Amino acid sequence: MVKVGIIGAGRIGKLHITSICTRVRNGVIKTVADPFMNEETAAWAESMGVQHTTTDYKEILNDPEIDAVLICSSTDTHSPISVEAINAGKHVFCEKPIDHDLAKIKEVVKALEGKDLKYMVGFNRRFDIHHAAVRQAIVDGKIGNMELVKISSRDPEPPSIEYVKGSGGIFMDMMIHDFDMVRFLTGADVEEVYTISNVLVDPAIGEAGDVDTAIVSLKMSNGALAVIDNSRRSVYGYDQRLEVFGSKGMVQDQNVGANNTIISNENGVTTEKPVNFFLERYLDAYAREITSFIDCIENNTPAPMDVWDGLKPVMIAQAATISSKEGRPVKMSEIKF
Amino acid sequence: MVKVGIIGAGRIGKLHITSICTRVRNGVIKTVADPFMNEETAAWAESMGVQHTTTDYKEILNDPEIDAVLICSSTDTHSPISVEAINAGKHVFCEKPIDHDLAKIKEVVKALEGKDLKYMVGFNRRFDIHHAAVRQAIVDGKIGNMELVKISSRDPEPPSIEYVKGSGGIFMDMMIHDFDMVRFLTGADVEEVYTISNVLVDPAIGEAGDVDTAIVSLKMSNGALAVIDNSRRSVYGYDQRLEVFGSKGMVQDQNVGANNTIISNENGVTTEKPVNFFLERYLDAYAREITSFIDCIENNTPAPMDVWDGLKPVMIAQAATISSKEGRPVKMSEIKF
Amino acid sequence: MVKVGIIGAGRIGKLHITSICTRVRNGVIKTVADPFMNEETAAWAESMGVQHTTTDYKEILNDPEIDAVLICSSTDTHSPISVEAINAGKHVFCEKPIDHDLAKIKEVVKALEGKDLKYMVGFNRRFDIHHAAVRQAIVDGKIGNMELVKISSRDPEPPSIEYVKGSGGIFMDMMIHDFDMVRFLTGADVEEVYTISNVLVDPAIGEAGDVDTAIVSLKMSNGALAVIDNSRRSVYGYDQRLEVFGSKGMVQDQNVGANNTIISNENGVTTEKPVNFFLERYLDAYAREITSFIDCIENNTPAPMDVWDGLKPVMIAQAATISSKEGRPVKMSEIKF
Amino acid sequence: MVKVGIIGAGRIGKLHITSICTRVRNGVIKTVADPFMNEETAAWAESMGVQHTTTDYKEILNDPEIDAVLICSSTDTHSPISVEAINAGKHVFCEKPIDHDLAKIKEVVKALEGKDLKYMVGFNRRFDIHHAAVRQAIVDGKIGNMELVKISSRDPEPPSIEYVKGSGGIFMDMMIHDFDMVRFLTGADVEEVYTISNVLVDPAIGEAGDVDTAIVSLKMSNGALAVIDNSRRSVYGYDQRLEVFGSKGMVQDQNVGANNTIISNENGVTTEKPVNFFLERYLDAYAREITSFIDCIENNTPAPMDVWDGLKPVMIAQAATISSKEGRPVKMSEIKF
Repeated sequence: MVKVGIIGAGRIGKLHITSICTRVRNGVIKTVADPFMNEETAAWAESMGVQHTTTDYKEILNDPEIDAVLICSSTDTHSPISVEAINAGKHVFCEKPIDHDLAKIKEVVKALEGKDLKYMVGFNRRFDIHHAAVRQAIVDGKIGNMELVKISSRDPEPPSIEYVKGSGGIFMDMMIHDFDMVRFLTGADVEEVYTISNVLVDPAIGEAGDVDTAIVSLKMSNGALAVIDNSRRSVYGYDQRLEVFGSKGMVQDQNVGANNTIISNENGVTTEKPVNFFLERYLDAYAREITSFIDCIENNTPAPMDVWDGLKPVMIAQAATISSKEGRPVKMSEIKF
Repeated sequence: MVKVGIIGAGRIGKLHITSICTRVRNGVIKTVADPFMNEETAAWAESMGVQHTTTDYKEILNDPEIDAVLICSSTDTHSPISVEAINAGKHVFCEKPIDHDLAKIKEVVKALEGKDLKYMVGFNRRFDIHHAAVRQAIVDGKIGNMELVKISSRDPEPPSIEYVKGSGGIFMDMMIHDFDMVRFLTGADVEEVYTISNVLVDPAIGEAGDVDTAIVSLKMSNGALAVIDNSRRSVYGYDQRLEVFGSKGMVQDQNVGANNTIISNENGVTTEKPVNFFLERYLDAYAREITSFIDCIENNTPAPMDVWDGLKPVMIAQAATISSKEGRPVKMSEIKF
Repeated sequence: MVKVGIIGAGRIGKLHITSICTRVRNGVIKTVADPFMNEETAAWAESMGVQHTTTDYKEILNDPEIDAVLICSSTDTHSPISVEAINAGKHVFCEKPIDHDLAKIKEVVKALEGKDLKYMVGFNRRFDIHHAAVRQAIVDGKIGNMELVKISSRDPEPPSIEYVKGSGGIFMDMMIHDFDMVRFLTGADVEEVYTISNVLVDPAIGEAGDVDTAIVSLKMSNGALAVIDNSRRSVYGYDQRLEVFGSKGMVQDQNVGANNTIISNENGVTTEKPVNFFLERYLDAYAREITSFIDCIENNTPAPMDVWDGLKPVMIAQAATISSKEGRPVKMSEIKF
Repeated sequence: MVKVGIIGAGRIGKLHITSICTRVRNGVIKTVADPFMNEETAAWAESMGVQHTTTDYKEILNDPEIDAVLICSSTDTHSPISVEAINAGKHVFCEKPIDHDLAKIKEVVKALEGKDLKYMVGFNRRFDIHHAAVRQAIVDGKIGNMELVKISSRDPEPPSIEYVKGSGGIFMDMMIHDFDMVRFLTGADVEEVYTISNVLVDPAIGEAGDVDTAIVSLKMSNGALAVIDNSRRSVYGYDQRLEVFGSKGMVQDQNVGANNTIISNENGVTTEKPVNFFLERYLDAYAREITSFIDCIENNTPAPMDVWDGLKPVMIAQAATISSKEGRPVKMSEIKF
């Protein structure tokens, strides 16, 4: 059994607690730390099987029984706590992004040097069975050489303007998942980025210095061409589709609806729209993600992702942001690490 | 060039005229006869390339230049004109059904004996590319041995009560197409029929002595089990679906919508409903049917259907009608020819 | 918290143990009884959170702390243990069927008389989100009055001949689920049954006195017409589809594939076939079923099903079996209870 | 009846001859001119109902009875013959593109000034019922304000290298249709173009100075963002898909397969791949295109397209070509006319 400490008991922390307690056979949560830990949360955690709760995450870092730490605290704390946890000899699963600031990510990279520790970043979509099956079809050679990659990722509705202001922008906050996905699907790196973007959903997003609609085209290191589109508002639900085209065929995945019914009437033939919320869409993916993390610790096998997989999407997001602002293609070599 | 005479210039006659004049390369219409031929129809026919119009169908039968006759007149005239045309040495394409009365069909069968003439009955659906592709998949062995056949056939709206009264009933008028289809798909004959039926669409249909909703189950001579459902009213359009299940797989066809668009919005993901009218749905099938008839005459190859294919669905319809009325399974051997 | 005892720790018992331990918030398993309880099973149960294991189911019945019993033992024990459990004042969830013998079911009905106990039978498919959504669409009036119901239910492969011999036949063993489904979908009862059937999959099934392929047509008490088809072998996986047609439209559900990918290549455009195994297809349905049972006990609300819902499908299966053997429609009034 | 002369009796000329002779009620072909007119073609044309054939297209221009000219000759002759035909007072339908050289198109524009003549360019896809239905959904307000447009257009296989060399490049030869489509769908103009491209299908295409795979992102004058991808080789057939996303929803269209069958077997659930050839895919669209041209002449209504609609895609193709070569976004204002 892998003993886990969880830092941060907000929405995503609670999600991981639930996953581990109900679905992960070889992991057990010893301690959950949150500076705002209250009775209700503590009681809930206990009911799930968590052994101990605290307001002080250092209890986790200092506990020699704990093998692995999940960092689910606010984004600005991801990198410093990562460094502390690594230095305490813990395997780390860190929610995305490690940091918006490459210098801070560099400290995490340095901390990991020479240590035999897993460091995974929470790009949960890699663990979605549909997206993973797209990757598997590629790996299995079903589409031959990759040539075109298309990713659509559209949120049901925009976040609050307060959230937008602190989000790092649409490329760092939202499209970062797609930058990870294009690397995951292709097994290649991005070489150049070009962004077109606009404020079409809500002028307040523009006033906050961000955009809400964007298309980013990417040249990949394997010669493939890719394009990602994002919108902050899709009235038909959470739209998440992949398409990879190659010399022997194409693989796509479809959205996931609430159920598989079809209603035929005077208005047409109607199936369910995609589910509306990322937690609903990716609930299983989150559980598989954590299962994978615990498994690689228990079996001492390579983690499915490492710190570089956490770093690269941040760099691509920076390039896309520059391209959006300066209206020019940005080579990844311009983004210094 | 095969020279054709057309007897009956109503809706279906006009359809065949149009097909031959615009799509059939090796057929030409010499004469169109209709007792109610008027100036408008004659002018239209001429504009299509028809050489001659008349009120007297005997002109066609007596014309030695004419190779083939299309009988598109009222149902009660199908069998006597068939006999006359056969005796005049013409190949015959007769709209369905040959007759409701088996004795009259017998006269057609007898007239054909010993003559080297084609006799096709207008079961147009065999020539629909989708239905034909289902049959082809079976012939190609894609589903192995046939085990289950399911046919759904639902009209957009019921015909007038006047029409119902003279129609011979739902089994003779509507499901007869499906009885042909089950023979076409399986290449086998029906051995036993059992009907459950009801009046659910319009009580007036019941008062006219007919039903409007029915399920007929059939034992086929090759061991397969089949079921056909019909409704006189499908609010989502003209529903025409086949499913054949076998030892190696299943083949189905889907309805044909007006176009291939998909609209996603707050109500769901919606495609077009099936087209609403049999002439629209089967326009190409009618043209392919007539092309096939003309081709087999020109090339002196076997016709894709013969008089027995016109007879059998009438017998099955009689069996289904008896089953509906008497509430018992009816063996085809009970229907004497 | 509802305290539960589980009788029978075979495949289905283990499934329910897992559901309750990981997904049911308001239920806890105090005791699991199985005459063949061994160390491995006991250890597994303990690891799941079960408090106690035993070989003697009477420990459960005699335990005043236990509120509810799940009967997951062999079919022949369902009815006697049901009676014992009811007499011990326990709420009962019994796997299907209660019994093949109506006299034994009658004893259960009698035992329940005057007692304020829930009695649910394990027709899990009612709790599948797709099938439940079909029912919900009907309840919501989306298709108007029900007129036609079509159910396809085809197993990936036939069971062993040994199993077939003790199964009660395809109608009692397999189609019983569909008989429940047609009642669930329509909210109506069956009035008459007619079966056509054959041995097309494996002659050994015929030698065992059973059939492997069947179509049953049913007259429903609300006037709707229904048809169910079953096959013991579907090479493309576990085929489970519903279609209900009414005055205002049609609702269907589609099969559930392993994932949502689409691969386009020289052979066509291919999606995943249905999952191959009922436990995989209905895993969530089993959990929702047990959740529903526990909830109605905790809240003292009516159970979603009662003993009559367990009884009726057995009676319909008997009628379908008679129809299959005697080749005639069988009225439900012939089946005496 | 509109009297038509056709200049050029190659593949596309023959297609239009067939459409007019079999599907266009109000058009008649008086003369077909082709410098390589031979007996076989002349006989075929006559059999279709063409009155006269010649090797000299000036016969058409000088014939006062002829109302309209279809220019189906080689691309380099499109603009000079257009000017001649306009000066002869003929309505003109010109195959795409008018010319690769803007100066030559300018001469056509000038020739049209002050004349009441229709001038349509053969962007046939606008007349495809599926693509037209996408546009109609937008016009009908079904998706609200347009925000994202995605077009996939992939040929089954690359043309010959000889063809590639004279084609003007993938953007002028192939993606020009998509540039027209993005204008048709949005009713807006392109403001800026950025291309990423590669040679992934055949190195010989690169040696010929062209690319075979490209993604072009476009800023539209209405604020929408668009992206087009092209490949010269799609093993699953001729891939032609549109997607338009807006404030109230999304409209897409699907590919058109040879038929609507679905085959389920051990390999999955397979539908037909898209048809493999543009003439098959767009046969009806070509007929509707010519019908539309003839109709607007007969009724003296505005043509659905004008010379500017023929010009703009050429300018966008030039911009995309520059972007591909120079690796930078190109504003449409850089392309001087």
